[in-house]
Amino acid sequence: MKAEIISVGDELTVGMIVDTNSAYLSSKLAGIGIPVTRHTVVGDDLDAVVDAVGGATRRADLVLVNGGIGPTVDDVTRQAVATVAGTGMSLDAEWLEVIRGMFRRRGFTMPESNAVQAMIPSAATRITNPCGTAAGFFLKINSSEVAIFPGVPGELRAMFEQEYLPRLVQAAPTGRVIVTRSLKCFGMPESLINEKIRHLMGPGRNPLVGLLAKDAVISVKITADADAEAAALLMIGDIKRQVRGILGDETATPPGPIFGEDDDGLQHAIARLLTDRRLKIATAESCTGGLIAKRLTDVSGSSNYFMGGVVSYSNEAKSIFMGVPESLFAEVGAVSPEVARAMAEGIRARLHTDLGLSVTGIAGPTGGTPKKPVGLVYVALAHSSGTELHELRLTGTRDEIRDRSAKWAMNMVRTAVAGIKHDR
Amino acid sequence: MKAEIISVGDELTVGMIVDTNSAYLSSKLAGIGIPVTRHTVVGDDLDAVVDAVGGATRRADLVLVNGGIGPTVDDVTRQAVATVAGTGMSLDAEWLEVIRGMFRRRGFTMPESNAVQAMIPSAATRITNPCGTAAGFFLKINSSEVAIFPGVPGELRAMFEQEYLPRLVQAAPTGRVIVTRSLKCFGMPESLINEKIRHLMGPGRNPLVGLLAKDAVISVKITADADAEAAALLMIGDIKRQVRGILGDETATPPGPIFGEDDDGLQHAIARLLTDRRLKIATAESCTGGLIAKRLTDVSGSSNYFMGGVVSYSNEAKSIFMGVPESLFAEVGAVSPEVARAMAEGIRARLHTDLGLSVTGIAGPTGGTPKKPVGLVYVALAHSSGTELHELRLTGTRDEIRDRSAKWAMNMVRTAVAGIKHDR
Repeated sequence: MKAEIISVGDELTVGMIVDTNSAYLSSKLAGIGIPVTRHTVVGDDLDAVVDAVGGATRRADLVLVNGGIGPTVDDVTRQAVATVAGTGMSLDAEWLEVIRGMFRRRGFTMPESNAVQAMIPSAATRITNPCGTAAGFFLKINSSEVAIFPGVPGELRAMFEQEYLPRLVQAAPTGRVIVTRSLKCFGMPESLINEKIRHLMGPGRNPLVGLLAKDAVISVKITADADAEAAALLMIGDIKRQVRGILGDETATPPGPIFGEDDDGLQHAIARLLTDRRLKIATAESCTGGLIAKRLTDVSGSSNYFMGGVVSYSNEAKSIFMGVPESLFAEVGAVSPEVARAMAEGIRARLHTDLGLSVTGIAGPTGGTPKKPVGLVYVALAHSSGTELHELRLTGTRDEIRDRSAKWAMNMVRTAVAGIKHDR
Repeated sequence: MKAEIISVGDELTVGMIVDTNSAYLSSKLAGIGIPVTRHTVVGDDLDAVVDAVGGATRRADLVLVNGGIGPTVDDVTRQAVATVAGTGMSLDAEWLEVIRGMFRRRGFTMPESNAVQAMIPSAATRITNPCGTAAGFFLKINSSEVAIFPGVPGELRAMFEQEYLPRLVQAAPTGRVIVTRSLKCFGMPESLINEKIRHLMGPGRNPLVGLLAKDAVISVKITADADAEAAALLMIGDIKRQVRGILGDETATPPGPIFGEDDDGLQHAIARLLTDRRLKIATAESCTGGLIAKRLTDVSGSSNYFMGGVVSYSNEAKSIFMGVPESLFAEVGAVSPEVARAMAEGIRARLHTDLGLSVTGIAGPTGGTPKKPVGLVYVALAHSSGTELHELRLTGTRDEIRDRSAKWAMNMVRTAVAGIKHDR
């Protein structure tokens, strides 16, 4: 069994909004073992929708269409599906009453234009909309089931999950589930990870192993196709163990790139490690401007190990909050290993924490010099046995340089903490 | 002239990530008057990519393909395009040297698997990648131009804008431009904005006016179709003036919701206002954990008005950095109007700024009580004529509560600054 998804709307083809419905529907179908092979997005154009639906019914067993069933003349999906099916349209009198009732309860009379939302192709079965006036429907075209939903994400999700998915599970038990899990890596190039685990990769395998790079984080994606979730997770677990053995996490020597699984960020690795070792941390940020503190506090319960931080965007703030000597700015400049060290040690002392983490650098696009170009960043981590310091030379936009700086700094905490003893 | 966009990647068809590249490319093509009629997403499957590219070349004059040109065996786009074109692959020796150099500069030897990224179909012309190892290329297939880009959004955008778009504008002048501009609003419900400007909206108009709500920011989108950019901008400017007159910005009485245009965030409104009035600001954040500081410093040049801030996640930090009396925590609790006020006034005094902005609240999901539920947030703004204080009762996830808290606080600065005189 294969599925395709079609999203309809000019706002999508002109690029005004991003199609999130296709990803949502795909992940829901994957959860019940139905692979999605194609997404198609077309505008509010009758011929284009007819062509897209016709093509999909020739390739797939299940076609989910969303969008274009509102009350306006732009909304052509109903007509297009009836055209492909070669049938006329019928009035769903029961649904028309529901729509009239909705307007009545809000104190309005239903505009006659809304009556079109109660028209569905003859031979189609209505899918009730639990939160709007646009009803969906499904019908057989050739040997495919074609189901139509509204494009508004909230309505689509409610209708799909409450009204359609249970039916689909019953009507088309695939006896299969497709489960995906990830291992998250930072600090090793994608190509090197690829090199090390390529013997586990390749098309047609089960589990399927792939790499996905996003914002300098490499995810090793493992997708298993099995007859039950437990079996899929067992298969995934086996691959995970192999990949963990090859790449390693922070307990490996030297520390490996794996910092977590699935939705984890580096902040979750830090949460786990600091909680486990009962260590507390404070931050002093210059060019990252609070990004590290923001990420650390993305984790609910972070107040147990994150005491606080300073965003010392001016030299005065660095002196006031961390006791960085004013003279240092004149001697070596705010972006220097010396200032990074003084910030990390200063914030650690001021907030009485085990760890003090600091970042100072030039995020750009302005502010660079030949000697200190945009992308030059120093990160320092002060702890009981001394202060570690790294110099980074990053490229990219301001946002990218700030993001990578924050990640390098947080990764430094991750790899260092494994070797730090609790000293308080 | 018509275009189609094809995105390649299993991570898209399984719903793991949302395809943002198609919307990006569509809006860029709209900007030079090339309408996009279809987006297609297929997985990392040679036959599927061949079928998608083949179909698109039969319908469209321009086909932009992204994704599937990494170094791994999953990456089938190069081969698929060569198959559709009926040609073999050639080594781009010059690009191979560039890739080797990139690895060398990072201290690695290029894994041989990366050499495939220098292979492009014979008869194709390379598109240089300004920030990665995957080169793109373009070639003629039937009467269509087919151009291939990496799927990583940052690389795609840099390559498209720097290397391909200028060529396209020269090669295919359309005589039409479609331009979209936005007015950004915060602090007025979408339904009220809709009510106030609905006489400017409706299908088939030129300019077309629509509303788009995202993360509590409402964008008034204005799209004009004209024979030249200047003409489109004139048409848009006329609508903008009308909308500005109706909704108003911070200089209106009472202050209106419009804080900026296009890609502006509230931080850009603050940058504009503080720079104009030569005011300096410092922040003291509890539940937002650095998010406000991070956003203020998203703006290059923010060091001119942002002195720094504190993320006082613990009560100790609030006392150490802002002199909040320890007794206050026992008396009224850290989440209280009194502590919000003490934080705002404390940070203003400590960093000698005109404005001190503070947030303290309960972001959840844990930590709420019947008296102080999750979503209870206090924001305070201390300035020369006193301290303003707001109590917010927010709903949503931890991320949403933090985001809305930051936005309310920043909006408070925006609306207050118009009435604040510079006193230093």
